[in-house]
Amino acid sequence: MDQDTESGFESLDPQDWPAMRALAHRMVDDALTYIETVRDRPVWQSVPPEIAASFEGPAPRAPEGALAAYEAFAAHVLPYPMGNLHPRFWAWYMGNGTVGGALAEFLAAVMNPNLGGGSHAANLVEAQVITWLKDMLGFPASASGLLVSGGSMANLVGLTVARNVGAGADVRHQGVAAAPRPMTVYGSVEVHSCNQKALELLGLGSQALRRVPVQDDYTIDLAALQRMIDADRAAGLQPICVIGTAGTVNTGAIDDLNALADLCTREGLWFHVDGAIGAVAVLADNVRHQLRGIERADSVALDLHKWMHIPFEAGCVLVRDEPAHRNSFSLTPEYLEHGTRGLAGGNLWFSDYGVQLSRQFRALKVWMSIKEHGLDRFGRMIARNVEQAHYLGGLIVAQPQLELTAPIGLDIVCFRYNPGGLDDAALDAINRELLLQLQEQGIAAPSYTTIRNKYCLRVAIANHRSQRSDFDALIEAVLRIGALLSGSTSVAS
Amino acid sequence: MDQDTESGFESLDPQDWPAMRALAHRMVDDALTYIETVRDRPVWQSVPPEIAASFEGPAPRAPEGALAAYEAFAAHVLPYPMGNLHPRFWAWYMGNGTVGGALAEFLAAVMNPNLGGGSHAANLVEAQVITWLKDMLGFPASASGLLVSGGSMANLVGLTVARNVGAGADVRHQGVAAAPRPMTVYGSVEVHSCNQKALELLGLGSQALRRVPVQDDYTIDLAALQRMIDADRAAGLQPICVIGTAGTVNTGAIDDLNALADLCTREGLWFHVDGAIGAVAVLADNVRHQLRGIERADSVALDLHKWMHIPFEAGCVLVRDEPAHRNSFSLTPEYLEHGTRGLAGGNLWFSDYGVQLSRQFRALKVWMSIKEHGLDRFGRMIARNVEQAHYLGGLIVAQPQLELTAPIGLDIVCFRYNPGGLDDAALDAINRELLLQLQEQGIAAPSYTTIRNKYCLRVAIANHRSQRSDFDALIEAVLRIGALLSGSTSVAS
Repeated sequence: MDQDTESGFESLDPQDWPAMRALAHRMVDDALTYIETVRDRPVWQSVPPEIAASFEGPAPRAPEGALAAYEAFAAHVLPYPMGNLHPRFWAWYMGNGTVGGALAEFLAAVMNPNLGGGSHAANLVEAQVITWLKDMLGFPASASGLLVSGGSMANLVGLTVARNVGAGADVRHQGVAAAPRPMTVYGSVEVHSCNQKALELLGLGSQALRRVPVQDDYTIDLAALQRMIDADRAAGLQPICVIGTAGTVNTGAIDDLNALADLCTREGLWFHVDGAIGAVAVLADNVRHQLRGIERADSVALDLHKWMHIPFEAGCVLVRDEPAHRNSFSLTPEYLEHGTRGLAGGNLWFSDYGVQLSRQFRALKVWMSIKEHGLDRFGRMIARNVEQAHYLGGLIVAQPQLELTAPIGLDIVCFRYNPGGLDDAALDAINRELLLQLQEQGIAAPSYTTIRNKYCLRVAIANHRSQRSDFDALIEAVLRIGALLSGSTSVAS
Repeated sequence: MDQDTESGFESLDPQDWPAMRALAHRMVDDALTYIETVRDRPVWQSVPPEIAASFEGPAPRAPEGALAAYEAFAAHVLPYPMGNLHPRFWAWYMGNGTVGGALAEFLAAVMNPNLGGGSHAANLVEAQVITWLKDMLGFPASASGLLVSGGSMANLVGLTVARNVGAGADVRHQGVAAAPRPMTVYGSVEVHSCNQKALELLGLGSQALRRVPVQDDYTIDLAALQRMIDADRAAGLQPICVIGTAGTVNTGAIDDLNALADLCTREGLWFHVDGAIGAVAVLADNVRHQLRGIERADSVALDLHKWMHIPFEAGCVLVRDEPAHRNSFSLTPEYLEHGTRGLAGGNLWFSDYGVQLSRQFRALKVWMSIKEHGLDRFGRMIARNVEQAHYLGGLIVAQPQLELTAPIGLDIVCFRYNPGGLDDAALDAINRELLLQLQEQGIAAPSYTTIRNKYCLRVAIANHRSQRSDFDALIEAVLRIGALLSGSTSVAS
């Protein structure tokens, strides 16, 4: 086939544009109906074995066509979601997503720019989003930022800068073994595991993470922190950074950020805040005061795909000291040298501020979502989830068979079914089975955790679709299933 | 407002579903037309100052609505793309994207699952995609893999495992300073900069990257590599890994992978292949033989958003030794403990194999694209780009004013305008301006590099829309602009 002939030219473009257009419209209709009717379906259901088996087999060599690809998706994937779109999904900690966010993700992929750098409008969108987030958290205009995949990467970036600034040697060139003393980093025992992962990656090792005890409210014990820093210095170690947590994953606790900022200033330490869960709650009138001091951090990790419901992935890291940030990541090889004219012009080179060189246009869904809804609506959604957590707490304390197992922090409620007269082992078994039945019956999807050695249900209400009646339904089901199980304490596998 | 009242309940869902549906259909129509007509527009144009100014200003507090958000996008973002959708975009190294890929990205965001783990169909899609990619590269079924943001992350993951396996100490726990000897990693001087970035992150420092000379064809000099390893061992260092490059970014050179595999076996070193550019060319009949030996690597980084045109981001890392891979990243904290039933059931926990905990459904666009097109079509697109590179090379050598500045590797052509009688400084200035004018006039978007101290245009043809006439047009414009410039050698800024 002559490659110069337009007709019959094979590419990855549709061979039949009207047919592809019709299919695209069908996808949009199906998708909007899917979201609009989510409440009518079970929260979650397991993938049947015959459906799971459909995912075996080799890649097709020959084209099956866009329609066949969509029909495979519609038949085998769409009916078996994780469940986090549903109003009664409260597992782990994730957002629902939105219609507008999904459409923005489509538009981003249509343009398909590479946000590594260069001169094009998409970079201006990301720059504006970062400015908005800096403003939101009270960071100065001179600070830098980067949209990243999520909290794990945001924490990794912040801790990388902390390491490079605090090492006392040129660790980018010489490696961490060149540091005059072993570096240590401090966070509470409730610090998210991704921070440990980051320190392992960075070559500091998990032993560099000093786990500071918490108080009864699960916030970091400041006196213990000070003692640990003092002891490490006395032992010849090099404290470099304190990680404050703004919303622990287990119980939503927010460390005293102003006190940590004071301590870090006094001790000359980098102050990093892991705000993956809670930082965006600065938008909520009933939470904002708990986050005071976050504006004093040297770096902050925040997630927009959690409590702001932007579709995955959308995280952000902010760094107060822009040169320190850039100096930790910029390489600017020859073929990426920055100019002032042409495609490679301008000064928006986001690849200089993080791990990735090629970067998708994740800024668009954030930018369009903030325009669509305005920051105040996000604030109201967050505030309502916090109120709902306390509403749920009220339902729990009103029932003698139920027991709150931790203070309610932010939007996270930990509790267990406890009809009395059973030891912890028996209660663990009942609650374990209770959770599985809640999920398997499609009623609700909490997750679980262990609080002071007690297995408990954990309801993390980052959900813009949840209504009070959803929590009534949860409690009704917990009581019903719990009563059945406490008659026969079958043990979950 | 009573939160239990369905009517008037504020959420991030559309308040007017029919209006949102109509807007979504408009977006789809606009988007498909945009892609269908891309050839009619300039490849690239700079963002006018008044448009750039529209990206200033604070975030809206009040809702502006989805329609206003879309209209801002349509007016200020869509008309100023990077240009990589266009048939004459050959800058850096990136794909075009596709209609089907963009729609899949929409569907992924509609479902909005978190591919960190759990029991739901999206994880089965990613598992199948990884199986397909293992099959494609000749990796065993027992190998592990992970879809990641791109080559930078894929290389980071591979090198993390290499570090942890080769250190001779428990570096995850104790840090790299615990290694008995300083670790070294080898790659040619043409190795991609992201590998240096990875070693800096990993705490080994850029000095750990030993840059091995290349031969005239820009592939690694195996004898020099052997000498450097021997010298480092003699100096008390600990060689741990060799990075083979399958497609260098400057000239598309592919190292002798079988020879590197032999050397790594003999020396007991981890063999990592950075195949971000070239690995997927195993699908192309005219390239496959050059990639022999890739199936022997311990780890491979590949990119699907480059030569397979999946929308950003879509990279993949494969690791032969699954336990070593998992042991480098798994933490599995309590609240993520894996069960056998319920939402948290199953054994597909991708967060155990990489940096991210929350992960978007990037597998869907790969899965649907491979179904839509079949692997063989991707192979034909790749093979055609290689043929086009040689076609362009033929056009260049036929013109006395043009000079090939490197051997054509894969789909990458480096050349310069050289009418004779000018020194390299003058030629650099002419070619610099020539490139900018090609871009500014919207004709074509090559990028540039420096080969043996000569500035040259670099045409990287990862483009399923390019036709031979596009290269004719490039050469015609280069000759026209070059002739004008060599009369007046104005210097680009």
